[in-house]
Amino acid sequence: MTEVGIDAIEIRTGNLRLDLPNTFAPQKGEDPEKYTKGLGLTGSSFPDSYEDIVTMAANASHRLMERKGLEPEDIGRIDVATESAFDNSKPVSTYVAGCLEQVYEGDFHHANKGERKFACIAGTQSLDDAYNWIRAGRNRGKAAIVIATDTALYARDDPGEATQGAGAVAMLIDEDPDLVSLSVEQGYGSADETDFLKPNQQFPSVDGKRSVQVYLARMREALEDYKSVAGAIHPDDFAYGPFHTPFPGMVRKAAVLAYRNLIRDTDIADVLAEEIGEQPRRDDFADDDAFFDALTEYTDALSGTERYQDWYGATIEPTLGIAREVGNWYTGSVHVARISALRHAAANDIDLAGQRLLVGSYGSGAQAEIHTETVQENWREEIEALNVDEQLDRRYELTFSEYEEIHDAHNHEMDTEVEELTTPESEFVFDGWGRMGERKYRYVE
Amino acid sequence: MTEVGIDAIEIRTGNLRLDLPNTFAPQKGEDPEKYTKGLGLTGSSFPDSYEDIVTMAANASHRLMERKGLEPEDIGRIDVATESAFDNSKPVSTYVAGCLEQVYEGDFHHANKGERKFACIAGTQSLDDAYNWIRAGRNRGKAAIVIATDTALYARDDPGEATQGAGAVAMLIDEDPDLVSLSVEQGYGSADETDFLKPNQQFPSVDGKRSVQVYLARMREALEDYKSVAGAIHPDDFAYGPFHTPFPGMVRKAAVLAYRNLIRDTDIADVLAEEIGEQPRRDDFADDDAFFDALTEYTDALSGTERYQDWYGATIEPTLGIAREVGNWYTGSVHVARISALRHAAANDIDLAGQRLLVGSYGSGAQAEIHTETVQENWREEIEALNVDEQLDRRYELTFSEYEEIHDAHNHEMDTEVEELTTPESEFVFDGWGRMGERKYRYVE
Repeated sequence: MTEVGIDAIEIRTGNLRLDLPNTFAPQKGEDPEKYTKGLGLTGSSFPDSYEDIVTMAANASHRLMERKGLEPEDIGRIDVATESAFDNSKPVSTYVAGCLEQVYEGDFHHANKGERKFACIAGTQSLDDAYNWIRAGRNRGKAAIVIATDTALYARDDPGEATQGAGAVAMLIDEDPDLVSLSVEQGYGSADETDFLKPNQQFPSVDGKRSVQVYLARMREALEDYKSVAGAIHPDDFAYGPFHTPFPGMVRKAAVLAYRNLIRDTDIADVLAEEIGEQPRRDDFADDDAFFDALTEYTDALSGTERYQDWYGATIEPTLGIAREVGNWYTGSVHVARISALRHAAANDIDLAGQRLLVGSYGSGAQAEIHTETVQENWREEIEALNVDEQLDRRYELTFSEYEEIHDAHNHEMDTEVEELTTPESEFVFDGWGRMGERKYRYVE
Repeated sequence: MTEVGIDAIEIRTGNLRLDLPNTFAPQKGEDPEKYTKGLGLTGSSFPDSYEDIVTMAANASHRLMERKGLEPEDIGRIDVATESAFDNSKPVSTYVAGCLEQVYEGDFHHANKGERKFACIAGTQSLDDAYNWIRAGRNRGKAAIVIATDTALYARDDPGEATQGAGAVAMLIDEDPDLVSLSVEQGYGSADETDFLKPNQQFPSVDGKRSVQVYLARMREALEDYKSVAGAIHPDDFAYGPFHTPFPGMVRKAAVLAYRNLIRDTDIADVLAEEIGEQPRRDDFADDDAFFDALTEYTDALSGTERYQDWYGATIEPTLGIAREVGNWYTGSVHVARISALRHAAANDIDLAGQRLLVGSYGSGAQAEIHTETVQENWREEIEALNVDEQLDRRYELTFSEYEEIHDAHNHEMDTEVEELTTPESEFVFDGWGRMGERKYRYVE
């Protein structure tokens, strides 16, 4: 069976940067380590006043098409995942196609355009839809562009404010991919949860504590479901584990639980038993409370073992590199984690071809999905073609008062004109409103 | 290759009815025939104060599951298409699953839930995603529930007010379907258009004239694209042509253009040439204006031929039966048209097994999709199991002042408490807001 997966990938960060320990923390009167160590973040990406989910999506897609030598006729599907949409009917993908048609001769008139919404998991759902479309034999030799784009802003002074971010990830989905192929097998953990909502509002209402619990519960469920389909898996089966990263500290919490699950009934559990005892099993305890206490104790001990620390350092820590610098990109987050891991491997001359990734996506509301990916022969060339460092380095450093102004500029409830802080160059920009309230865009040479 | 398609289908109308010629027209001081003959509508379905997109979706899905003897474990995917969402992050499908879990023992924790948005075409896009998921071999023996649900309301006194409607369609997608199988082939016509928008607003901004032009242009493009993949098609190939029906008058306009396109280079064109001349071709005219004038003249003549009238009466008119009584259901509209056609065949004892449907979906913004369906052996039993007439007949007839109140009750900008006009029975109802602004639901025995 021909492999189907991600042929190429690009990111586009917002052009501004908010320094969390040095600019945000002093204004909040807080210890900078709350951000750097607690959340695991040093900076957030922010959109300038001429940027939004469309410009970031179009700019990422444009670089993707240019780099792969694609014309509009090569694309049969453009799907956008976002939870930052500004229209309740017209999808972002039509705006993105409209942008790209400004700079290409051809058009996307025979491409299926769409939009998916499910908090942060919709990017992976769109990736799966594109995979299925090709596997179903409906792609007519064409590839899909799948875009995850968000301006992950919170209301000012919301606890989530420190985890903000803004950026887009564009992925080219095709047969015989150059980067990674996707497993047919998937595991789902999904329930009707009220952890994070945006009821007729732009900025989220979040139950922070519940949100962490739900993330962990749904991920565990998805992992169990994946194993029920794909069979037993071993931690050593995977070079990296890119997970949805609302903030790196969340992944640190999730990783030890995933490891505890993965080592069950393996040689690793046997070896560790000598050091920290056996994993507690429900049947051995009189009640739930006693069981959970024992489980917590075991998990704490597990997280302190050298074996776990080595696994975490090699498999999880490398997935967090970009997130630490950009914050949460919502739908793009897990796809940024994949790029972080592959960049780490390329930088450290690790040979990944044929190795596997355990990919954990999540969206509040809530649903987790687990699938695996196999790194392809040409992965290094693809990853080295990205300009992630250049994009991150050239961001404009916000003062706190500039941050306050730019946050207002992106607030749909406010009618604020803010001067742009950077000068756009070779990119799509927001160009004002049309007569029906539509957003307009143009390409700046 | 095993067939994949719609195994069963259910609709759920809003429990109220607004009579257009007798209640709406007099208040507007207009000729009732503006509605009955111009738009082709006699009534609109409206949601009572305890109904919304979730209750209608859950009630349609519940009847679907009960009728087919399904348990939650049989379902691997629940996708909802809507352009009436009330949350920018949490998808409607999670609420629907939450409702259904109140009345079933099992749960949908391993089902992939999602939400698609693209004006009225997202229902068909979700149907296609489910088809592809099965064809891709990822369904693990489970079926998908695809739901199209909308409260298609316009601002009071907007020209679109007369075309309102509210309802849901739930479809069971599976292998070896009982109702219709879907073609692998699809045709798309898609462009970045500003005809109908909801920029950060509940009710649409519509450019009515442009919207009609865009509908026709994108449908023509999709038909050409379909023929480029599937080969030549002949009007007689199809028993029915269910099209997106914003109002039946729109389909009347579209049908003659589709027919003109379909008969080109066929025996029908030759026969009609004696009566109304050859179809004008661009090359035979000095400029576009002259060509378009000739084309308009030919189309007018074509619409008056007995041959066309017979085709329209047999193939298109039967698709409009339910729409005339319920108005526009947005994402559900084309799926209501399919049901209308099949009901007409069952009522008239027409043998449809093995016959084909030409299905034309459309969403403003804008995109059209054409695919074909093949009616399956058990279609009659499936269609006769529906209770469409019962649902339509039991709707509560609104007075104009009740209509004004219930419209306000569904306006997200207004905080209005309105007494329910009907008494819910054996159905899911809206049950107020939770502490995070989430909508809550319960089942009324």
